[in-house]
Amino acid sequence: MSDIYESVMDLARRRGFVWPTSECYGSVAGLIDYGPLGTMLKRRIEDTWRSFFVIREGYYEIECPTLGQEAIYVASGHVKGFSDKMCQCPHCQEYLRADHIAEENHVPEAATKKEDELAACIASFPCPVCNEILGKTEVFSFNLMFQTTIGPGSQRRGYLRPETAQGIFTDFSRLLRFYRDKLPFGTVQIGKSYRNEISPRQGMIRLREFSQAEAEIFVHPDKKQHPSFFRYASYAFSLLSSRQQLHKEEAKIYTMEQAVSESVIANEYVAYYLALTHEILTTIGIDPEKLRFRQHLPDERAHYALDCWDAEIFSERFGWVETVGIADRTDYDLRAHEKHSGERFSVFIPFDTPQKEKQKRITANMGILGPRYRDKAKYIAEALAEAEPGPDGASVTIGGEEIFIPADLYEVIEEEVLIRGIDVMPHVIEPSFGIDRMLYAVLEHSYKEEMVEGEIRRILRLPPVIAPIQVAVFPLMPRDGLDEIATRLTGRLHTSGIMAEYDDSGAIGRRYRRQDEIGTVFAVTIDYESKENNTVTLRERDSMKQVRIAIESVPDLIRDLINGSRRFADLM
Amino acid sequence: MSDIYESVMDLARRRGFVWPTSECYGSVAGLIDYGPLGTMLKRRIEDTWRSFFVIREGYYEIECPTLGQEAIYVASGHVKGFSDKMCQCPHCQEYLRADHIAEENHVPEAATKKEDELAACIASFPCPVCNEILGKTEVFSFNLMFQTTIGPGSQRRGYLRPETAQGIFTDFSRLLRFYRDKLPFGTVQIGKSYRNEISPRQGMIRLREFSQAEAEIFVHPDKKQHPSFFRYASYAFSLLSSRQQLHKEEAKIYTMEQAVSESVIANEYVAYYLALTHEILTTIGIDPEKLRFRQHLPDERAHYALDCWDAEIFSERFGWVETVGIADRTDYDLRAHEKHSGERFSVFIPFDTPQKEKQKRITANMGILGPRYRDKAKYIAEALAEAEPGPDGASVTIGGEEIFIPADLYEVIEEEVLIRGIDVMPHVIEPSFGIDRMLYAVLEHSYKEEMVEGEIRRILRLPPVIAPIQVAVFPLMPRDGLDEIATRLTGRLHTSGIMAEYDDSGAIGRRYRRQDEIGTVFAVTIDYESKENNTVTLRERDSMKQVRIAIESVPDLIRDLINGSRRFADLM
Repeated sequence: MSDIYESVMDLARRRGFVWPTSECYGSVAGLIDYGPLGTMLKRRIEDTWRSFFVIREGYYEIECPTLGQEAIYVASGHVKGFSDKMCQCPHCQEYLRADHIAEENHVPEAATKKEDELAACIASFPCPVCNEILGKTEVFSFNLMFQTTIGPGSQRRGYLRPETAQGIFTDFSRLLRFYRDKLPFGTVQIGKSYRNEISPRQGMIRLREFSQAEAEIFVHPDKKQHPSFFRYASYAFSLLSSRQQLHKEEAKIYTMEQAVSESVIANEYVAYYLALTHEILTTIGIDPEKLRFRQHLPDERAHYALDCWDAEIFSERFGWVETVGIADRTDYDLRAHEKHSGERFSVFIPFDTPQKEKQKRITANMGILGPRYRDKAKYIAEALAEAEPGPDGASVTIGGEEIFIPADLYEVIEEEVLIRGIDVMPHVIEPSFGIDRMLYAVLEHSYKEEMVEGEIRRILRLPPVIAPIQVAVFPLMPRDGLDEIATRLTGRLHTSGIMAEYDDSGAIGRRYRRQDEIGTVFAVTIDYESKENNTVTLRERDSMKQVRIAIESVPDLIRDLINGSRRFADLM
Repeated sequence: MSDIYESVMDLARRRGFVWPTSECYGSVAGLIDYGPLGTMLKRRIEDTWRSFFVIREGYYEIECPTLGQEAIYVASGHVKGFSDKMCQCPHCQEYLRADHIAEENHVPEAATKKEDELAACIASFPCPVCNEILGKTEVFSFNLMFQTTIGPGSQRRGYLRPETAQGIFTDFSRLLRFYRDKLPFGTVQIGKSYRNEISPRQGMIRLREFSQAEAEIFVHPDKKQHPSFFRYASYAFSLLSSRQQLHKEEAKIYTMEQAVSESVIANEYVAYYLALTHEILTTIGIDPEKLRFRQHLPDERAHYALDCWDAEIFSERFGWVETVGIADRTDYDLRAHEKHSGERFSVFIPFDTPQKEKQKRITANMGILGPRYRDKAKYIAEALAEAEPGPDGASVTIGGEEIFIPADLYEVIEEEVLIRGIDVMPHVIEPSFGIDRMLYAVLEHSYKEEMVEGEIRRILRLPPVIAPIQVAVFPLMPRDGLDEIATRLTGRLHTSGIMAEYDDSGAIGRRYRRQDEIGTVFAVTIDYESKENNTVTLRERDSMKQVRIAIESVPDLIRDLINGSRRFADLM
């Protein structure tokens, strides 16, 4: 087998999964088009994700604009910090990632070096494009957000969102009300995000416009026991904790219960979404042998994050590719938006039984205060109610002026008040999925070449739930009424919502190969016997086995086989 | 009933259909967030659209980036022509649509006036914002595309796409190969498009970021008979042709067959998609009484378009709103991209039987040509093969020099060649749907207020196929095991892919009202009888009727009621 990346991308281009964008004008690095089959595959991957997060977990989806006002990204920190270190080659004028040049030349900790350190570092290295020694060159930060202007007259700066998450955070108050003011609750968003990469060169892995599926789960900071943890308590897979990485140890298999109790994973919420991520990725066809969960090392983890893991998928071309991130982000995001917007981002949590608490309160003696302070007396009385009394009196500030009020002008009353609950700022647990990387990995892991009858059979072993075409319908010959029977059956399949493709051209063997290559799960062939007894052959892609079934039963049977409620092997 | 727009938008905000975007930072005109229920509703509208265009028509979907390089939009004409006439009020500095000011002041044909004419026109009118007379002010064209830069160093100008269609056109060659080089074929795209409106003030109707569903159907220019026209030949609805508008006549009901044969609609393809559009819009809940199809008047229609219709939906607040456009765009788009890209955008159509044609061909006499022209002889011979011979000889141009070759230096051979087919540039039929406007219209048309037992009952009569929540599950009391039965049933419904919502808070009547208001189609109540005989009550939203059914049958029954294969009335 040649390099599997080349084989997969050749198939992807040739059969309409993925194309370079606006190719007739020379395409653009970091932008791709999903062709007819790629779009169908992508949509099924997204719908599978939804079946877990939206239907099963009950976390509703929202849809915010991709275009956002500047204030959001000032608060989120992207305006200041979402940037890469860049330089320009003085010889060929190419823009380059300075940190990547340093890394490729084995400079330790290149990612954390400052601009001038990096510039000094890379001066003696060759430009990766023209190979001249770079020499003295400036390194500067390049913000990775695409910037534009909303409305005429440069009135309002806008950015294309770098992640979908911020739309969920800025809608927090509305969402809290939607969920009737109770924690925990979750919200998801699936959509485009943007990153103005300096020079993307890794196909579908590093895109300037990409699709994310993100969930933000808002939980009580002191209650990180997941209510459905039982679901995954004994679910086990391989974890590569930061401790293991630091000790150069191998990844180790843990159940989620064990991982939490041994403090490998910070809490049940994080563990729950690691397991859910594992289940989603293997459901869409990621080879579990090429999937690992790696914990961020202390120096890679954001300072505010309590715990952070990446689901990494192994690619023969790209190595271990970070595809999903799962983090406990604490209250960092909500706190930032509260600070910048002035709006409250907390949840009022009522106590089971209201608590009594003693509080001191000052009541002004208006009989004396009134005549002495005249117009100001009312304001002083109000200020006193909030003031902290000293032994001799209390200081209040009225219109900028500090006034000392002696103790004999007021009374201090000690009273018992009823506290009904407290304001809590939720913590955020965030699983964030990169859809394009998932799709590429699914193609790479499902692509196989086999020798069948002396010929190479190329096949995508896609799980039925995500295969773009679910069933192909072939009349053995495009005549004698076989084509009409096949066309009618295709129509019936469409009416049942099944993606069926009619094909009557070429030898039947060639038609099978065409469908195998795009992952079509089943093929139905109408032959001369069909005209006599209303039966057809049903062939399964993976086993290439065939079984004869009644034509009437085809739509229901295909539906059941696709959703897994029946198995092909049981038909034999 | 108060203004229905206010009631609908109040409900939409309160219950989580539509929210102002990034409200905590003051929101942005022309950008909206779809909340949990709005996103679900939008997705179901899009999926309904797909069930028609992708599954039934077999037009595959593709997904191109929203960000595109400049060359695309130079070719499409958007860089030059996609603009509005704008001015700035010299008093309040507000940016204004100059043509709108003229229109509101009853200036005839304001839309077609040039910048300086408009400036002269509006000088005497008041600013619609501050009310001062505008006076002398400059009117200029403002391009409505959002502009940005792709990559560092202002290397490459990029635009956010103003429509999804261009991605399909630029992928034409790839798509043609996908469809095995045969006409007709169709391709669709659903996604975000952008329009940097000068000052949008119409809620969900005029957005700066909006969702489109567009289909581009590529047909042979001489074959505009739709292969499935029979499906809609006798389908009838109200048409307002340009002729009727010019004669101030009323709209008239036509069957599609009649409309085509009387040349009211240009051809079967356009008629087919008018009817399909009518079917989709009424399927998602648009009131057919508030839907009309209006043909563009000759002066509104793009110069290249052969025919163009708008599906307009009546809104109590906005009047007749253009929501879908259906046009025969001829070969305008493909021709423009062929010209700008240099790539071929045609289809080779083989003849049924190759045709013989006589052609003249020149063969050089190298015996004389060689010695006389030496090094040039070879180039002259090649040029002669393409040249048109005159009576005395032929002119050829070699390296910029024109050389006359006398007739005795070559022979003219007349030969019969076999022409296997011709290159044809397809025409494009384009139905283009505005998803956000459809969604708003569905909300407005389905919103009802009724008096029930002395209280106002607010209800969204959404068709089952698009209702965000399909069934609510209520335990009569949140105790005595009723809650457990209800939770288990909710889980079973989720497993069947049904959007079910559990609710145990408040009186049962209040719970019904909460669900009625968001359009939930059915409600299942678990009561004390349920514990005894495993039955529950099923209540239908519209009739408010109830029927007792076995709890086991609920998931299958709900599925059948939602997809329309069974009817609630038949259960009574």
